[in-house]
Amino acid sequence: MRRVAVVTVSDRAFTGDYEDRSGPVVVQMVRQRLGWEVVETSVVPDDRARISAELIRLADDAGGDLVITTGGTGFAPRDVTPEATRDVIDRDAPGLAEGMRLASLRVTPHAMLSRGVCGMRGQTLIVNLPGSPKSAGENLEAILAVLPHALDLLTESPDSEAGHHLKHA
Amino acid sequence: MRRVAVVTVSDRAFTGDYEDRSGPVVVQMVRQRLGWEVVETSVVPDDRARISAELIRLADDAGGDLVITTGGTGFAPRDVTPEATRDVIDRDAPGLAEGMRLASLRVTPHAMLSRGVCGMRGQTLIVNLPGSPKSAGENLEAILAVLPHALDLLTESPDSEAGHHLKHA
Amino acid sequence: MRRVAVVTVSDRAFTGDYEDRSGPVVVQMVRQRLGWEVVETSVVPDDRARISAELIRLADDAGGDLVITTGGTGFAPRDVTPEATRDVIDRDAPGLAEGMRLASLRVTPHAMLSRGVCGMRGQTLIVNLPGSPKSAGENLEAILAVLPHALDLLTESPDSEAGHHLKHA
Repeated sequence: MRRVAVVTVSDRAFTGDYEDRSGPVVVQMVRQRLGWEVVETSVVPDDRARISAELIRLADDAGGDLVITTGGTGFAPRDVTPEATRDVIDRDAPGLAEGMRLASLRVTPHAMLSRGVCGMRGQTLIVNLPGSPKSAGENLEAILAVLPHALDLLTESPDSEAGHHLKHA
Repeated sequence: MRRVAVVTVSDRAFTGDYEDRSGPVVVQMVRQRLGWEVVETSVVPDDRARISAELIRLADDAGGDLVITTGGTGFAPRDVTPEATRDVIDRDAPGLAEGMRLASLRVTPHAMLSRGVCGMRGQTLIVNLPGSPKSAGENLEAILAVLPHALDLLTESPDSEAGHHLKHA
Repeated sequence: MRRVAVVTVSDRAFTGDYEDRSGPVVVQMVRQRLGWEVVETSVVPDDRARISAELIRLADDAGGDLVITTGGTGFAPRDVTPEATRDVIDRDAPGLAEGMRLASLRVTPHAMLSRGVCGMRGQTLIVNLPGSPKSAGENLEAILAVLPHALDLLTESPDSEAGHHLKHA
């Protein structure tokens, strides 16, 4: 069973002015659709250095196979999750980011405004999802079917349970 | 009303050997379809440093909300508009570039040869369009509907007129 | 007639533990579908520095108009062909990489796991294809129609034979 960390990136969720609704959507999809363990959830503000530090901690120290962020991928001046992600990945996985935007474009042209990045730091895959619960769910849905194989390749250790748990919508 | 600058990148248009036809197409679409003000138009040669300098001037000094370039995005040795754009943006907006190529692919497979980049420099959005009038128009058309919201987010100041003026083709 | 080099990137093919089957698929398509000359084929291990050195040699010394790699574009820890390619290109051609993934997505969602990069080093175009013979062929097929024009632009010397030899599937 894969170990997953979910990071909500949002100034307002961090200060408590706003309830984090996208993080729980992601957690539920990871558990129910992939059957994977969510080992940690956290909320960080829209600060490039703090996001990077959190990604490094979750990948290197907490040993996550997959770190999913939600939020901070848009056009607002403080949206810097993609930049923070690029700061810490050593390999880029553009096909996942393109695939999510492509699926999302079928729902709304505003999918073009998502700047999410996907890539690997060592043997951890990091995936940026948008901040709205609806978009986060739609984007994750678009890559759900390929995540088990992606992590099998990345960690060179097939997780036979993954395929069994994956339930297509 | 948003302030837009349009930059034609072309050695031949710069020297006057060739009439700039794509710049005027872009200017007309910005005015008629978005209802925005074109505050400046210029023509620069296919020189990476000069393109970068012009983008910086238009974003930082002229205070453009949106800077649109046309030309220099192809495969010819002197086509360096994407590189010059990367030199000056601090955030990447890959979804806009992908969205334009995707729309353009429906017209011609040669859309794959467009190397255009989109991204932000501070609170200015920079968009690269191809150099032919037809392709420039088709590419701009593909993102026209999301530009008002993109700039609202980027500048954190909704421009209520934008939506009213946007006329879908 | 264009000069093409084909590089198979694979630890197992390099050591001889595994027969290279994707290289020959690429060679055959280049000859039969484009009518171009394959001036060199080589096999290198999944080592970033060695891949980069080979790309430089083929572009700068062997004078290839087009260098096609197959292999090393996936998620396994030793898959570093895209990184080695980025190390040596001076201009990016994202539309070719996106176009290949888009075509491949129609066959399988696992196309999202291909991290292939395309770009130019001087007047040589470098294209990364996946490592499986089937995927390599499908990806190359997706850009076959635009390669003649791409190289005409890049080398500023139209190869009139190219169009004549291109046979659509």
